[in-house]
Amino acid sequence: MENTQHTEHTVTAQAPQSVVWEVLTDIENYPNLFGATKSAVITERGDGYEIARLEVDVSGQLQAWTTRRDLDPELGVVAYRQLETAPLVEHMSGEWRALPYGPDRTQIVLTHDFAARQEGADGKVAGKFTHAEAHEMLAGAVERNSTAHLAAVRDEAERRAARAKRAA
Amino acid sequence: MENTQHTEHTVTAQAPQSVVWEVLTDIENYPNLFGATKSAVITERGDGYEIARLEVDVSGQLQAWTTRRDLDPELGVVAYRQLETAPLVEHMSGEWRALPYGPDRTQIVLTHDFAARQEGADGKVAGKFTHAEAHEMLAGAVERNSTAHLAAVRDEAERRAARAKRAA
Repeated sequence: MENTQHTEHTVTAQAPQSVVWEVLTDIENYPNLFGATKSAVITERGDGYEIARLEVDVSGQLQAWTTRRDLDPELGVVAYRQLETAPLVEHMSGEWRALPYGPDRTQIVLTHDFAARQEGADGKVAGKFTHAEAHEMLAGAVERNSTAHLAAVRDEAERRAARAKRAA
Repeated sequence: MENTQHTEHTVTAQAPQSVVWEVLTDIENYPNLFGATKSAVITERGDGYEIARLEVDVSGQLQAWTTRRDLDPELGVVAYRQLETAPLVEHMSGEWRALPYGPDRTQIVLTHDFAARQEGADGKVAGKFTHAEAHEMLAGAVERNSTAHLAAVRDEAERRAARAKRAA
């Protein structure tokens, strides 16, 4: 685990924590929020957790992985961990946090802990890359996706909050 | 204000919110936390706010500015606004937020809203730069300083929390 990188990204939503939580925990709606996510299906649901299978367009290639999500509604945290990882990924986990910042705003935080795979018997990762190249690609994707996903969750939460306000 | 850029950076501290709040609100201790901050003196203190004068080493040059800080202990927010700005800065404001994430951890958030100065009568900012150059320099400094300042506040809060635990 010595090569694990930890990142934290954040954005403020003008929406109550309960609305952000609703958006975050509705994983089967993710394809409507994130353009690259082509499908999201919950395959197992238990006490405080769920397991989902995702199909995601990664640079024009459809990749699939399975993620376990542990939900802590009291803390406002969805802890995720990829069970089967994508080809470049040794491990990938982290948290979505929805922290109330006053009654009408929420600090949304997305953290990642990840490492790229080590070279295989052929001296390459996924038959193509050095470990350093795989790490760079993965770190770049985490950076871009963090910003994009936080913005998408914020926008959806703000839409729902505005709709609820109009309906009230 | 159309050129204003908004940024948010964050880090998790393994320390209770009250400890992070104590570190954030002790501005006269900032020179001990941030290497570039050479002095910090509170020049005025009122109901829920303080005004401080800072001397900061900016790329080898000592610059000074005055900042107003509005403290909201209930929300865990220090809203700051530069009253007299540094040579490149049109305006600079933002918030330090200390949001509890469970009893022993705190999400520390630092936001910036800033713009570089427009070119003066000589067609330059501070006699040297185009507006775009000034913006780039400012954005780069905000990026570097956000990461460094968040890490410094986190480290100090974690030191104090560990010390309090040992003393208990």
